[in-house]
Amino acid sequence: MSQLKQLNDRIVSRVNANLAEFDFDTEGFVKNSLEHDKMMKFYAFYGITSRHPLYFHFRNSNIAGSYFLGKCYVGRSAIYKSDIRGDELKREGDKIQSATNIPLVEDEMIAIRDSLLYKTLVHSNSHNPESPEEFGIRNTISAHYANIHGSTLEGCFLGPFSTVDLMNLHSCIVGEFSYVQAGELFHRKIDPGTVWIKNPNFEFKYKFRKDILEHFVGVNAKFQPRGMIYDFVKERDQDYEKLFDVMNLEPIEAPATSAVNRYAVIQGKTYIGENVLVSQRAFLHNSVMGDGSNAQENTYIIESTLNGLNITAHGGKIIYADIGVETFVGFNSFLNGKADAMIEIGEGCIVMPHTIINSNVPIRIPDEHLVWGYIGSSSDIEDHTIALDDLAAIRESLTMGKMTFSGMGSVFIEGFRKRLGQILLANGALYNKGEKRGHAQDDQNISFNLIQPYSTGDRKGLYPSIRIKP
Amino acid sequence: MSQLKQLNDRIVSRVNANLAEFDFDTEGFVKNSLEHDKMMKFYAFYGITSRHPLYFHFRNSNIAGSYFLGKCYVGRSAIYKSDIRGDELKREGDKIQSATNIPLVEDEMIAIRDSLLYKTLVHSNSHNPESPEEFGIRNTISAHYANIHGSTLEGCFLGPFSTVDLMNLHSCIVGEFSYVQAGELFHRKIDPGTVWIKNPNFEFKYKFRKDILEHFVGVNAKFQPRGMIYDFVKERDQDYEKLFDVMNLEPIEAPATSAVNRYAVIQGKTYIGENVLVSQRAFLHNSVMGDGSNAQENTYIIESTLNGLNITAHGGKIIYADIGVETFVGFNSFLNGKADAMIEIGEGCIVMPHTIINSNVPIRIPDEHLVWGYIGSSSDIEDHTIALDDLAAIRESLTMGKMTFSGMGSVFIEGFRKRLGQILLANGALYNKGEKRGHAQDDQNISFNLIQPYSTGDRKGLYPSIRIKP
Repeated sequence: MSQLKQLNDRIVSRVNANLAEFDFDTEGFVKNSLEHDKMMKFYAFYGITSRHPLYFHFRNSNIAGSYFLGKCYVGRSAIYKSDIRGDELKREGDKIQSATNIPLVEDEMIAIRDSLLYKTLVHSNSHNPESPEEFGIRNTISAHYANIHGSTLEGCFLGPFSTVDLMNLHSCIVGEFSYVQAGELFHRKIDPGTVWIKNPNFEFKYKFRKDILEHFVGVNAKFQPRGMIYDFVKERDQDYEKLFDVMNLEPIEAPATSAVNRYAVIQGKTYIGENVLVSQRAFLHNSVMGDGSNAQENTYIIESTLNGLNITAHGGKIIYADIGVETFVGFNSFLNGKADAMIEIGEGCIVMPHTIINSNVPIRIPDEHLVWGYIGSSSDIEDHTIALDDLAAIRESLTMGKMTFSGMGSVFIEGFRKRLGQILLANGALYNKGEKRGHAQDDQNISFNLIQPYSTGDRKGLYPSIRIKP
Repeated sequence: MSQLKQLNDRIVSRVNANLAEFDFDTEGFVKNSLEHDKMMKFYAFYGITSRHPLYFHFRNSNIAGSYFLGKCYVGRSAIYKSDIRGDELKREGDKIQSATNIPLVEDEMIAIRDSLLYKTLVHSNSHNPESPEEFGIRNTISAHYANIHGSTLEGCFLGPFSTVDLMNLHSCIVGEFSYVQAGELFHRKIDPGTVWIKNPNFEFKYKFRKDILEHFVGVNAKFQPRGMIYDFVKERDQDYEKLFDVMNLEPIEAPATSAVNRYAVIQGKTYIGENVLVSQRAFLHNSVMGDGSNAQENTYIIESTLNGLNITAHGGKIIYADIGVETFVGFNSFLNGKADAMIEIGEGCIVMPHTIINSNVPIRIPDEHLVWGYIGSSSDIEDHTIALDDLAAIRESLTMGKMTFSGMGSVFIEGFRKRLGQILLANGALYNKGEKRGHAQDDQNISFNLIQPYSTGDRKGLYPSIRIKP
C-alpha cells in the first residue's frame, strides 16, 4: 500500500473514531473527493514577506495546490487546494481577554495534524483560551469550500460550504452550508443550512428550507457537493489555471496602497481603488472595488460595484450587484443578481453569512438593514431583512419567518459593528499616510515558494519534510 | 547597509584574506558580476526524486537561479545561476581508497560556506581523505562557468571557464580557462589557459598562447569574461528563459531509458537515443544523441551527431561536428565547426579538457587519438593530436608544440579509460534490462521545488532559512 493511501486511511480512522456516536463514516467522502493523480499534479505555495512571522514545517503530508502564509505546521495530513492564511495569528506578548490577559509566551502557530482539508479556508486565530499559542486542527475532515475561521477543531467533519467562526468544536458534524459561531461545542450535529450565532447575550438562528437548500448546496450519499452554488464555482475553476502555469504574471494595475494577490483572477474592466485587498483565489470580473473594499479568498465579484469600505468575507459571491458604502457581505453569501435583475444593497447594511439572494426581478435593500436567509423574489424581502434601528430596539425576542432572535438587539448590532471595524482595520482599509497599516499594505510584494511532492517511489505523492525559518 | 550587501562584503573580505600573499583583490570582480536586481529576480530550484538521498539546508544566503540535487548545505553564501548537483556524493558505508578504506560514517554532503559561486557547476564528490563526508567549499569565489568537480576548496578564486577536477585547493588562484587536476595544491597561482594533470605516475601540461587565449576567453581588469566563447554562451542566454517562465512544459520525446532534464533547451530536429542523459542547462539544437551519449550541464550540442557512448563533460561545446563512438569530449572544450568546415572526430578518441578547435576548413581526427590545446587550422593537427598507441609507448617524456608529457603514457591512457568507463556507468549509458542503472534512469521524474527570496525589508534578496528532509 502506498504511503499516500496509508495517510488517507489513518485520517479516516481517526475522524471516524471521534464521530462513532453519530454512526458517521467519512470513508465515502474521502474516497470520492481525493484523486491521487490530482494530489500529484498541483504544487503548493507559501508566501514570504518581511511583514509576517515566518515558520513553515510540513511532514508526511500531501499539500497539493494549497497556499500558506504565516506560521504553520502540518503533519500526517492531506491539504488539497486549501488556503491556510496565518497572517492574523497572535504574536508573542499579545494578551487575550478570554485567557485573563496573560501574555502569549510565543507566536501563535497553526498546527494541522492527522486531518484532511479539501478546498478549505483556514484563517484568523485561535479562540481557545486553553491554547492561545496554537491554532489547532486535529483528526478533522473538512469538505469543499468550508471555512475554518479561528478555531480549535478536534475530531470533526465539516460539510461542503460550511463555516465555523471564532469558536471551538470537538467531535461535531457541521452540515453543508451551515454557519456556526457558538463559543464551544462538544459532540453535536448541526443540521445542513443552519445559520447560528449564540453567545451569553443573544442568539440568532435561521434554517434554510430543505428544498431551497438542496437547490443551492446539496450533497450526495458520499457527501460530495452538488447544486447551483457548487456549479457556479466549478464553472470558473479553469479560469484559475493560467495563474498556476506561469511563474511571472504582469502585475494588475492598482494603487500603491492596495494589494492584489498574484493568485487572484482579475478579468475584464476591473477597477481597484485605494486601500483595497484582493486575496488569493478571489475572482473579479468587470467590477469596481471602491476605496477600502476587499475581496477575500474564494470570493467572486462579477459585474458589480463595491462603493467603498466593503468587506466581502471568505467565499462571498456578488454578481450584478451594487453594494453601498460600509456594507458587509458575510461568508459564503450568494448574491446572484442578473443583468436585468440587479441587486442593490444600501449603505451600512449587514448581509449575514450564508445569505442567498436569487431573484428574477431587481432586489433593493435600503440603507442600514440586516439581511439574512433566502430572498428568491421581492416578496421575501419583508421576512428576511430588518432595519438595524428596529433590531436594536429588541430586548427579548423576535421571530420573522424562519429566523429567531433572542436577547439584546443592540448588543448584537454593536458587536457586529465593532468586529467589522476591526476587520477593516486589519485589512488596511483605513490606511492613511503611514498609519493604520493592514493586509492591503503588508500583503504586497509576496515572494512565492512552490513545492512539489515525490513523483516516484514509496513516498510518491507525499511532500518531503520542509522547514522554513527566517 | 542591506543584509545582502553585508553578505557580499563578508565573502570578499574572507577570500581576500586568504589571497593576500598574491596581492589579489576580489572586490572588483564581485562588484561587477553581482547585480542585486537579478539576485532578486530568479528563483532557485531543487530536485526531489526517490533515487537520491535528500537534504537541503540554506541559511543567510542568496541562491538566485541555482539548481540543487542531492544533499547540500549553504550558509552565508551567494550562489548565482549555478548547478549544485550532488547525485554522485558518497553514501554512508562507502569506502574510499585514499582514506584507507574506512567506511563513511554518514552520507556525504556538499557544504558551501562564506562563498560566492557565479554560474558555476559543482559536482562529483570530495576527494579529500581528511573529510570524506563533506564536499566543502569555503571562503571561495568562482567566476562565470567555472567547474568545481570534486574538491575541497578553501580561500580560492577561480577565474571564468576554469575547472578544478578531483582535487583539493587551498588559498589558490586559478586563471581563466585553466584546467587543474593535481591532487592537492596550497598557495599557488595557476596562469590563465593552463591545462595541467599531475599525479605520482605522470604529468601532462599545456599552455595556450596568450594571444589565442585572449581571443577565446579573456578577462578585463575586473575579472569579467570576454572573448569568443563567452560571446557564444551569452548569445544563447535568452533561449533558456522560457524554461523558467512556465511551470509545466511538454516533455521532450525520449525513450524510457533516457532522462531529458526539464531545464535543458532542446531545439529543432533533435533525436534522443536510449540511455541518454541530458542534464539541466544543456543546449541541444538539430542534433543526434546516440545511444548511451550524454550532454552534461552547460554543454551545447549544435548541428552535430554523437554516435553513441559519448561523454560531453560539463561545459563542452560541440558545433557542426560528428563524434565517433566512445569518444570523450572534456570539460569546456569548444569544438567550433562550421556548416562548410565540419569537425569529424573518430571513434575512441579522448578530447582533453579545455580543447579548442576553430578552423575554417574541415578538421578530421582519426580513431583512437588524443586531442588537446588549440587547433586553428589543419596544420595544427600534427602538434595537437597523438595516436593513443603512440602515447602508450612513451615511458619518460614527450614534447609536442606547447604540450609536455612525462611519465608512463600507458598509465595515463589506462587511467583515463577507466574513468570514462566509470562515468558512462554512473550516467546510465550501459543500462540493460534493469542492470547498471545510472543518472539517465534515476534522474527522470524529478519534482522541482522553486524558492524565492524576501522581496522587501531588511532581508531583501536573502532567502529564508529552508531545510528539507525526506
